[in-house]
Amino acid sequence: MTFSVAVSGASGYAGGEILRLLAAHPDIEIRTVTAHSNAGQPLVQHQPHLRSLAHLTLQDTTPEILSGHDIVFLALPHGQSGQYTDALGDAPLVIDAGADHRLTSQEAWDAFYGGGFHEPWTYGVPELTVDGVKQREYLRGATRIAAPGCNASTVSLSLAPGVAAGVVDPGDIVSVLAVGPSGAGKSLKPHLLGSELLGTANPYAVGGTHRHIPEIRQALAAAGGVAGDGIRISFTPVLVPMARGILATSTAPIAPGASDADIRDAWQQAYGDETFVQLLPEGHFPRTADVLGANTALIGLAIDRAANRVTVVTAVDNLVKGTAGAAVQSMNIALGLPEDRALTVNGVAP
Amino acid sequence: MTFSVAVSGASGYAGGEILRLLAAHPDIEIRTVTAHSNAGQPLVQHQPHLRSLAHLTLQDTTPEILSGHDIVFLALPHGQSGQYTDALGDAPLVIDAGADHRLTSQEAWDAFYGGGFHEPWTYGVPELTVDGVKQREYLRGATRIAAPGCNASTVSLSLAPGVAAGVVDPGDIVSVLAVGPSGAGKSLKPHLLGSELLGTANPYAVGGTHRHIPEIRQALAAAGGVAGDGIRISFTPVLVPMARGILATSTAPIAPGASDADIRDAWQQAYGDETFVQLLPEGHFPRTADVLGANTALIGLAIDRAANRVTVVTAVDNLVKGTAGAAVQSMNIALGLPEDRALTVNGVAP
Amino acid sequence: MTFSVAVSGASGYAGGEILRLLAAHPDIEIRTVTAHSNAGQPLVQHQPHLRSLAHLTLQDTTPEILSGHDIVFLALPHGQSGQYTDALGDAPLVIDAGADHRLTSQEAWDAFYGGGFHEPWTYGVPELTVDGVKQREYLRGATRIAAPGCNASTVSLSLAPGVAAGVVDPGDIVSVLAVGPSGAGKSLKPHLLGSELLGTANPYAVGGTHRHIPEIRQALAAAGGVAGDGIRISFTPVLVPMARGILATSTAPIAPGASDADIRDAWQQAYGDETFVQLLPEGHFPRTADVLGANTALIGLAIDRAANRVTVVTAVDNLVKGTAGAAVQSMNIALGLPEDRALTVNGVAP
Amino acid sequence: MTFSVAVSGASGYAGGEILRLLAAHPDIEIRTVTAHSNAGQPLVQHQPHLRSLAHLTLQDTTPEILSGHDIVFLALPHGQSGQYTDALGDAPLVIDAGADHRLTSQEAWDAFYGGGFHEPWTYGVPELTVDGVKQREYLRGATRIAAPGCNASTVSLSLAPGVAAGVVDPGDIVSVLAVGPSGAGKSLKPHLLGSELLGTANPYAVGGTHRHIPEIRQALAAAGGVAGDGIRISFTPVLVPMARGILATSTAPIAPGASDADIRDAWQQAYGDETFVQLLPEGHFPRTADVLGANTALIGLAIDRAANRVTVVTAVDNLVKGTAGAAVQSMNIALGLPEDRALTVNGVAP
Repeated sequence: MTFSVAVSGASGYAGGEILRLLAAHPDIEIRTVTAHSNAGQPLVQHQPHLRSLAHLTLQDTTPEILSGHDIVFLALPHGQSGQYTDALGDAPLVIDAGADHRLTSQEAWDAFYGGGFHEPWTYGVPELTVDGVKQREYLRGATRIAAPGCNASTVSLSLAPGVAAGVVDPGDIVSVLAVGPSGAGKSLKPHLLGSELLGTANPYAVGGTHRHIPEIRQALAAAGGVAGDGIRISFTPVLVPMARGILATSTAPIAPGASDADIRDAWQQAYGDETFVQLLPEGHFPRTADVLGANTALIGLAIDRAANRVTVVTAVDNLVKGTAGAAVQSMNIALGLPEDRALTVNGVAP
Repeated sequence: MTFSVAVSGASGYAGGEILRLLAAHPDIEIRTVTAHSNAGQPLVQHQPHLRSLAHLTLQDTTPEILSGHDIVFLALPHGQSGQYTDALGDAPLVIDAGADHRLTSQEAWDAFYGGGFHEPWTYGVPELTVDGVKQREYLRGATRIAAPGCNASTVSLSLAPGVAAGVVDPGDIVSVLAVGPSGAGKSLKPHLLGSELLGTANPYAVGGTHRHIPEIRQALAAAGGVAGDGIRISFTPVLVPMARGILATSTAPIAPGASDADIRDAWQQAYGDETFVQLLPEGHFPRTADVLGANTALIGLAIDRAANRVTVVTAVDNLVKGTAGAAVQSMNIALGLPEDRALTVNGVAP
Repeated sequence: MTFSVAVSGASGYAGGEILRLLAAHPDIEIRTVTAHSNAGQPLVQHQPHLRSLAHLTLQDTTPEILSGHDIVFLALPHGQSGQYTDALGDAPLVIDAGADHRLTSQEAWDAFYGGGFHEPWTYGVPELTVDGVKQREYLRGATRIAAPGCNASTVSLSLAPGVAAGVVDPGDIVSVLAVGPSGAGKSLKPHLLGSELLGTANPYAVGGTHRHIPEIRQALAAAGGVAGDGIRISFTPVLVPMARGILATSTAPIAPGASDADIRDAWQQAYGDETFVQLLPEGHFPRTADVLGANTALIGLAIDRAANRVTVVTAVDNLVKGTAGAAVQSMNIALGLPEDRALTVNGVAP
Repeated sequence: MTFSVAVSGASGYAGGEILRLLAAHPDIEIRTVTAHSNAGQPLVQHQPHLRSLAHLTLQDTTPEILSGHDIVFLALPHGQSGQYTDALGDAPLVIDAGADHRLTSQEAWDAFYGGGFHEPWTYGVPELTVDGVKQREYLRGATRIAAPGCNASTVSLSLAPGVAAGVVDPGDIVSVLAVGPSGAGKSLKPHLLGSELLGTANPYAVGGTHRHIPEIRQALAAAGGVAGDGIRISFTPVLVPMARGILATSTAPIAPGASDADIRDAWQQAYGDETFVQLLPEGHFPRTADVLGANTALIGLAIDRAANRVTVVTAVDNLVKGTAGAAVQSMNIALGLPEDRALTVNGVAP
């Protein structure tokens, strides 16, 4: 059986990456691609790397055009999905790469996003746990899926095992991320110009204002059975000169009494059977190049007794495991397909 | 009066940067440049950007050749300065860009470096304080100066004011640094190849093993009048694709009772009169591009009450304020010259 | 049927890329990987992005270890393949990614490489023509294949249609290539360090000394039915700060009487039916990002009557279509498999 | 004596670089900085690297505000200078960094720019010759100066000596340039986004459409005493991932009978006494890093008898020798100051 797909936001980075992955998916027919101001133009004009989709033309993003497909992907700016999701009421499967359906707390939504609040959908990070059950289980047969924020899922995957096992203190997390600009989308903002990014490291959203913070707190609280306000995180992203990639360095205090073995075991237990989230051997740490184009999150773990902190370094391709790969992996699960279909664990390096 | 200078390690990155700065210094005559395996070759073959020094030839690095100058700069790999400094006993001014004369604690030296321990020299970061007195005062008339480690001085400058004022808790510092590879020198190591660094973020020395950690603890302890073991730091450097630059994100818990005004005032008081260390206005944070080629450390400060942490983001050019600029600034002070001679506060951007 | 494979030079860039492609090939079992100084170590230590091959250990590169496989890939430094190929006399299929079996002229070999000359093997660029027949036809059932030089095949593919059709003059070609450093391999040479490559453009082999020049002349002569000395090319590669990719700008004089339609038709005819070599519409030109990780050569063509030259801009991933992809594509053809198996036309962008 | 200066376009890249250089100029007082939409804002908000100018506020760009200074720099988009220059009739010295006053031929202007044609001003490349006289001589005492196009001056300096000496044929020049995006200004265009430029090489203006072509033809015709239509050039710029820098590879046919000595002598004679344009020794070629932040054009020359072409590789910092440095150097000459004041020959590397 082949599933028909429509992708909105197809001229952007997240939409383009969903298309790149789906183009190699044997069970998927990409039938419709939509955009806003670029509607009417060939897709390949905006995604010149997607040669196998050169026959597609961007259509308008309307509920009518998106309807009638087995699967609809929404890759729209935050705050725009909601207006479509209501009108897609009878679509068999809708996957939103935006933030609109991620948060369970309206208070958090109002504080970090604002605008209309929308009901939370099943969260598209299969390897995280909620109440001790892998998110994967909730995704089976799901019809509405919220793909994660790229920084959020990277940090959540980094620390969830330790929080769940109680070997780290979730009350004083510090995360600093080296990130590529593609996570910010194809936005015409001065600080995203190449001249401003080449050869320089640029911090942004310093001091607790980044919108992915409530998403991390929500995921870690769910993983750890902790109240949301028990999770505190200092979160600083830094733009660095690579088009894509996230390298998240996250630390949390070692819980009293936790042995080195306890700590490593927490991550090993959580991810030992996972394909796309892998704990590296002791003393090894990942580079973003290792996961370029891959759906893999690679995790290196150090126990720093002098600082009394666990340091977790995680590499993710923000557009794959951080966004589009998470969406396709979740889709595979929802549809009952092999979870790794059209996804690779191998990065493109050097 | 013109001071004659010899620079060892002149074919490397630190040596090259010392030469770049001195070449524009009106009171300095660069008389001698030395190297090891490259001795006998024209300097410009190894430093093709130093056009004004095209007449110089690299000589052997021996005490005899280095002697007889008013000032000797040592830009040698760690552990190599010591063998020369003994033999330069009568040199009027020696400035070591290596680590050999930085640490006051032999225990720390043994733990992080090993090999012979050498006496500590006056530390070349004029804006730090020791016992409430700016390091600048100790540098006046100094004859032996240890230029700082680039990462170390960046983190020390980031947090010293808060530690000294008691507005942050120095017992749980977390620093993550985006750094360019030139800080590692011109070493032929696989992980420093361009193919391994372009388009990727690479962590190293994760988990408390970086050699700059004891240097930071020493500087912050001195600034804060704290015992060395009262300073605990989780320190993670990440190589990112820029030839030079350090962007250090450092956080420390807010001390109980410290108001926002107390906190900002600590940094403002410490650096308000400084030329080369500048606190940016509230809400502003620096990029490494802003300090490229400049001797400036730019500091942005955020107070994150939700995380109960102060976040300090500091940008430094590792080869200038981090190494060679600190050396020249210290030299200026030692010689009684204007502190900013041959140094600029303006970066080369974009 | 599954074919067993051995890959030598598996710890290098070309070997790693062959493995990345073969890891996704359903008809291939990667049985043996070999190296020199790294033998005995896990493959993944040197290719940390190849997570699906984490079970493999590097063995010694000896004829004995390489023998007994259906297919042997040699990804060795130039001049080293020959010593193995003699000893692999009975191997069903050997594909050499090095230069040793590319040139038909010993004179050219001696002038540009030196050392022992080896017999030419079937050249692994299926889309080029020899005597009016696509190279693809010679590859069917071939047992010894020479994968191309990355710069050479890029330039040859750029100009061969025009030379074959007689619409450009092959006697005064000028090619300038922006290239990433991975084409130079994982060599510990100072000019390949990240600090030397980040933020700068570095020319090398200027003035007609690059070893790919005779390979281009050979291919264009074969395509055009021209004597080798009828092909003259000014060839300048420039290292730019991207890990992989070639953007070749090649120009040749317009042949007297050639109309614009004649010119475009030459390329359209040559590549209109090709999957992996594509002529872009008029006015469009490729970026290397468009082919990152893909086996595609994208070609943009401009006719500059004011300069009386045709300008061809071609983008290739040096490690894929330039090397490993060409090898796998040729292998597919030789084995009678679908030519595009395990290869993609879609790049990873942005 | 101190000269008062106004700089328009001060929030852009060219304006910022003029300010960076002038900030270190002992004879200049930067009194006024102007912009358009950014008027009213602190300069340092748009040029955060210019710490020494943190006291300046951007004013409106009007003739009234620009008037009354000893020197006015115009760093405006092409086609906008003209409206101001008429109104600045009595200003002692006006230097235009835009194209409006560069071309002597209205026909060329109409073909490549369009809009109102303006009278040509003295061209700000002191090292070029017109009728056998260095441009420097025309600049002495000049009151209206047109700073060059960055690509144009780079190519013109590359080839002018050979054209003037008759050792190369100017009728079939081919130039391919690796350029950083800062040359395109701080424009919010999709293809200038960091995500589109990082890790990729992007050609533009392929096929003879770049606006710097007539400027090159004009300069080479003037240098060589050749009619403008005797200069033909195939010109292709390629954006590569570095914020600034131009590496121009230019080739021209060797003139019949020209010996190797004749050829090298042509460049040696032309530039042997120049400070800012330097011919490298035989076999040496420049990198853009060697001139970063410097006013130097470094030239490497190869004679390729097999291709019958001279290849000239020239490195320039597009914002310094390509624009702002050329403007300041020309200003120094016009005012009778030392030509190298506030300019350096040494690049910032690595």
